[in-house]
Amino acid sequence: MTATVKADLSRYDQKLELILRASARIFAEKSYHSTSMRDISRATGISLAGLYHYCKSKEELLFLIQDHCFGRVLQRLEERLQSESDPIARLRIFIDNHLSFFAANMAEMKVLSHEAESLAGDLHEHVSTRKRRYTRTAHKILSELQHAAVGAERPPRRNGTTRKTARPVEVTVATYALFGMMNWIYNWYDPRGKLSVSQLVDNITRLFLSGFLSQAERATVQGQAEKVNIWRSA
Amino acid sequence: MTATVKADLSRYDQKLELILRASARIFAEKSYHSTSMRDISRATGISLAGLYHYCKSKEELLFLIQDHCFGRVLQRLEERLQSESDPIARLRIFIDNHLSFFAANMAEMKVLSHEAESLAGDLHEHVSTRKRRYTRTAHKILSELQHAAVGAERPPRRNGTTRKTARPVEVTVATYALFGMMNWIYNWYDPRGKLSVSQLVDNITRLFLSGFLSQAERATVQGQAEKVNIWRSA
Repeated sequence: MTATVKADLSRYDQKLELILRASARIFAEKSYHSTSMRDISRATGISLAGLYHYCKSKEELLFLIQDHCFGRVLQRLEERLQSESDPIARLRIFIDNHLSFFAANMAEMKVLSHEAESLAGDLHEHVSTRKRRYTRTAHKILSELQHAAVGAERPPRRNGTTRKTARPVEVTVATYALFGMMNWIYNWYDPRGKLSVSQLVDNITRLFLSGFLSQAERATVQGQAEKVNIWRSA
Repeated sequence: MTATVKADLSRYDQKLELILRASARIFAEKSYHSTSMRDISRATGISLAGLYHYCKSKEELLFLIQDHCFGRVLQRLEERLQSESDPIARLRIFIDNHLSFFAANMAEMKVLSHEAESLAGDLHEHVSTRKRRYTRTAHKILSELQHAAVGAERPPRRNGTTRKTARPVEVTVATYALFGMMNWIYNWYDPRGKLSVSQLVDNITRLFLSGFLSQAERATVQGQAEKVNIWRSA
């Protein structure tokens, strides 16, 4: 490939990237259905004829936004997971990868979640396939984590009584709950606010793994609740 | 009020309820902006003129859906919380109330989450006020729970060393993470499937309070991870 062709490709990609980012912003603001190609032309300063050089239709723009996002987030994830086998570290990578990417692409996140059904036919099927693969990866990480934990021997208590085993949470519920916790951020999180992306990742990871109350805190609160009950029935 | 007027009011309310449910279903399916009053007329079998007897505009329909939902979920919640002071029980009530209501109103849930910005002016402000009150209630329940836990004395370890206190999760992050976990269900949960609403409530509550891995499981998995690391560096 000659240097000129390379530069042209790069210019083409940059302009497409600019169009996709502007379109995602407008779709997120006023919904896909209420946006016209004319709105996108105005926002980008690219003529209608110019836009059609990059995409056949508004639907193709929506497809490219969704496809690029899932493609990039999946590719980065698979690269980062390759060198890690510890189940907790793999989950941390998953959460960090998802939140870092989407905190930098909040408009795209909203479009992915609101306009999934606005695509039809092959375009819809193509994006759904990527999304299923991404969901399966999350499900597999959580299954392996639970398997590593539940499959291992539990130490007996010092007084010799058996330890009460808490029922594990359903992996499918946990997978979608994790996506819910992460994807809801477009409703409230401001990446330029006082909570940094890494603090957000840290909070979500600890909340998902260890819960809102640590074991010791749960015991304390439940102890207090029992005391209150005794006092009440006295 | 005479019996006839009461019966008329009830008939009016029932018909309005029918219109709101049908509208929510259509807004959820094809988005508010792509729905016309004619679509709602077709779906309900009520003439356009008849529809305008119940609402001035499509926007008023969207407002009534959002206002009725937040109104009903808030009223039920406040009634149920009145007689309960234990922080964990209050959180259970909050999760059960939210998920039971919205599992029976999934189309409304999607409309609430996708079309929040489709209202403007006073209608938007009215719904936002209710939503803020609902969010504040959740935030308060979590603050009280964390306060009860963190404020209490932690028992020292048997060997006399101090216990490492885990940093508490930010209450604001936890509040929105909880809403995310719960509100995401319209993307995956089937109330007629094999997971009952009460099982869903139970899973989400345990996941939020105790995390995906119990304390013992975390220790085991982390122990395994350490062993793997030692083996690797050997």
